[in-house]
Amino acid sequence: MIGEIIAIGDELTCGRIINSTSALAARELFLAGHQVVAMHTVGDSVKQIGDVLKQAISEADFVIVTGGLGPTTDDLTNEAVAAALHRPATLNQELLARIRAQPWGDACHKQSLEKLAWLPEGAEVLNTKAQMSGHVLVHDAVPVFFLPGVPSQAARLLTETVLPRLAVRKVTAMRLYRTVGLSECEINRRLVELEQDGSTSIGYYPAGGEVHISLSMTENGADSDFNRADQCIRTALSDWLYGTDQESLAEAVGKLLRAQNLMLATAESCTGGLISSKITAVSGSSEWFTGGVVAYSNHLKEVLLAVDQDLLRSHGAVSGPVAEAMAMNLAERTGADITVAVTGIAGPGGGSEEKPVGTVYIGLFFKNQVRSIHHHFCGSRNEIQEMTATIALDLVRRELLEK
Amino acid sequence: MIGEIIAIGDELTCGRIINSTSALAARELFLAGHQVVAMHTVGDSVKQIGDVLKQAISEADFVIVTGGLGPTTDDLTNEAVAAALHRPATLNQELLARIRAQPWGDACHKQSLEKLAWLPEGAEVLNTKAQMSGHVLVHDAVPVFFLPGVPSQAARLLTETVLPRLAVRKVTAMRLYRTVGLSECEINRRLVELEQDGSTSIGYYPAGGEVHISLSMTENGADSDFNRADQCIRTALSDWLYGTDQESLAEAVGKLLRAQNLMLATAESCTGGLISSKITAVSGSSEWFTGGVVAYSNHLKEVLLAVDQDLLRSHGAVSGPVAEAMAMNLAERTGADITVAVTGIAGPGGGSEEKPVGTVYIGLFFKNQVRSIHHHFCGSRNEIQEMTATIALDLVRRELLEK
Repeated sequence: MIGEIIAIGDELTCGRIINSTSALAARELFLAGHQVVAMHTVGDSVKQIGDVLKQAISEADFVIVTGGLGPTTDDLTNEAVAAALHRPATLNQELLARIRAQPWGDACHKQSLEKLAWLPEGAEVLNTKAQMSGHVLVHDAVPVFFLPGVPSQAARLLTETVLPRLAVRKVTAMRLYRTVGLSECEINRRLVELEQDGSTSIGYYPAGGEVHISLSMTENGADSDFNRADQCIRTALSDWLYGTDQESLAEAVGKLLRAQNLMLATAESCTGGLISSKITAVSGSSEWFTGGVVAYSNHLKEVLLAVDQDLLRSHGAVSGPVAEAMAMNLAERTGADITVAVTGIAGPGGGSEEKPVGTVYIGLFFKNQVRSIHHHFCGSRNEIQEMTATIALDLVRRELLEK
Repeated sequence: MIGEIIAIGDELTCGRIINSTSALAARELFLAGHQVVAMHTVGDSVKQIGDVLKQAISEADFVIVTGGLGPTTDDLTNEAVAAALHRPATLNQELLARIRAQPWGDACHKQSLEKLAWLPEGAEVLNTKAQMSGHVLVHDAVPVFFLPGVPSQAARLLTETVLPRLAVRKVTAMRLYRTVGLSECEINRRLVELEQDGSTSIGYYPAGGEVHISLSMTENGADSDFNRADQCIRTALSDWLYGTDQESLAEAVGKLLRAQNLMLATAESCTGGLISSKITAVSGSSEWFTGGVVAYSNHLKEVLLAVDQDLLRSHGAVSGPVAEAMAMNLAERTGADITVAVTGIAGPGGGSEEKPVGTVYIGLFFKNQVRSIHHHFCGSRNEIQEMTATIALDLVRRELLEK
C-alpha cells in the first residue's frame, strides 16, 4: 500500500530535534512491503496540520501522523482534525476512567492528562493499555493512524497495532552492502548493468570512509531476481565488501580475529580513541580486543609506547617510521597478535606545507612484520578522524583476509 | 521569510537513513530569523520530486532542496527540475573545467563526475570551489536552493552562501541549555513557573546522560523578556548547567583545564576509548589532553597501568579500588595533572547478581588525592557506555569547578 507520514512539532520545524520517528516508521512500513511516497513535517499550527493532512488523505492509501497528542497546550493535533475533517473531539469514557485510575501523579497532573481522553469523532483507540494509546480514524476510506511523537512509543504502537491492520501485499526483500576502498563512482560503474533490469533497484550511499549499496526488489521482481542480483553485486564488489545490513566494520574485523584466535590492540594519536570505541561498541569484543593506548601527545608516545625521542625528532610524530614504531612497541608491551597504530593531523590547526591537515600514517604489525601506509584525507576534523578510523580497521581486515 | 525544505532520497523514504540534513537546515534558518512552515521528504522519483517542488514554490518565499545531486544514476533532482519547471539541464563550463582539472581520480571517475556540471537552465552556482558546489534557481520569483544531501556539505553551503542571500526580518532569540545530573522532571519542576509567561517558550530534551532545555522567544516577546528568562534558567539550573548551544561537555571540561593550565589523561575499560574520542573530537584538545590507556582486558590493566594482580583478584576488575588504582597509576606514568578512570560492565554479557550489567566505577585522581564513585546505569550496551562517558567527564568538570 502507498502511505504518507506526517510529523508534527515546532521542535522539528525549527531544527531543535532530528526527526527519527518518521524514519523509524518508514523503515518498518518498507520492510512490511508498503511504499512511503512522501514524509511531511509541520509545526504546531492547526492550519498547517489540517492542510497537510487533507492532502495526504487525498493521495495515499493510508496516513501515519505522529506527535501533537500530548497533554500540553502546544499539542494541537485533535483541534486540527476537528477543523480540517469536521470531526469534533469527543470524550472516550474508557480512556478517561483509565487515566483517573492511574496510581501515580498528583491531581493537577491527572487533570492535565484528561485531555488525552478526547479523540476525534469516529476514532478508535489502538491500545487502551499503552501510556500513549494512539488512535485510528478512517476518513474517505483512508485509515489515518495517530501515534505519539516519542520514537519508542510510536514504534511499539506501529508494530503491535498499525502493521497488523494494513493489508500486506508482499514483504519487500532489501539488503545493504557495506564496502571500504572503492569510490561511489566506481561501484556505480560496476553495477550499472544491473540497474537496467527492472526487477530490482539499487542505491548508493557514501557514509564516512565507506560506501553502502542498497538492493531492493521492485513490484515486478521475484525472489529469484533478487538472489541473482545479490550474486552479481557480491562478485562486482569482491573483497571491498566487508559486510551486509547492520554489520559494522569493527564487527567484520572481530569475526576474522575470532576465527583465527587472534587478539588485536590499537595505538591512536589523531583518532584519539575513536578506533577502540568503534571496536568496543561491539558486544563480546573482549574476546578479540585487548585494548591499547591513546598516545595523543608526543610525551605519551615516549612513555607509554617507548617511541624513540630521536625518531620523533628526525621524522616528526606524523610519519611512517613513528607509526611503525607505535605498532611494533605496542605489540611487544601488550602481547597482542596484531596491532594497528595511527598518527596524523586531523586539523583544523597543526598542518604545514610538507604535512598538510589530513596527512595520516597507519602502521600495522602482524607476524613479526611491520609496515605503514600513507593517506591524505580531505574534510573537517571529525571527517578526517572518521576516515582514518575506517581505513585503519580495513587495513586489519585485509591483513586477516590475506592469511 | 517563510521557507520550506525538501529532502530527496529513497534511503530516507524507506527509513534506512535518518534525515539530519533537514533538521540542520531548519535550525540554521530558524536562528537566522526565518520560519520553516513545512519539511517534505520524497524518494528518487522524477514525478514526486517535481510535484512537491511545484507546490512548495507556490506556498513559500524560498525553498531549500537537499539530495539527489550526486554523480550516480539514482540522483534525479536535475531531471525532475527539467520536467516540472521546464528548465532543461545545461552545461556549466566553469564547473566542467574544474572537474576536469582535479588532480585525483581516474578517467572513468572524472567522466561520471561531469554529470555534476549539468545544471538547470538559469541556475547560478553557489560555490564553485566546494566539492559539491550547489546552485540556486529563481523560479516565479522564489529562490530555490539546491544543496547536497551530505549534512556537512549542506551545512557549509547553507551558512556561507544561502543565509547571506535571504533577507533577514528579525533574528529569533533561541538558546539551548545543556545539563548533567538533574532529571527532566526535576528541571521541569524548577522551570514550570517560567512557562506561564507567554513571551518565551521552553522545551525539554533528554540526550544520553544529559538533559537539554531550549528557550525561544515567541512572536510577542522582547529581548528583555528573553534575557530575564535566561537569568531565571541559569539560576534554576545552577552548576548542573555546563554549557549552552553547541558546546559539548568535553569542550566545557577543556575550557576549565586550559584556564587552570592542567593536563588530563584517561584510563578506560568499559567505555573502550569513548571518553578520549569525545575529548579529541574537540579542536585544540592537545593543549589540555595528553592521552591515556584503553585497558580493556585485565592483562592491559596490569601491563600498561601496573594495577596489582592481587587487587584485581580480591576486588574484581569492576571495583572502586581498581578504578582508583587505574587513575593513580595513570597519573604517575603520564605525569598528567588530573586523571579519570572507568571500569564497568556494559553488557549485554558479563553481569552477575553482585555486579549486574550497568555497574560502573569511576576513579578520579587530582592533587595527590584519589577517590572513586559507583553508579548503576540501565539501558543497552551503547547507552551504558554513553552515560558512563558523560558522568566521567562531568566528574572532572565538577572537580575543576570546586578548586
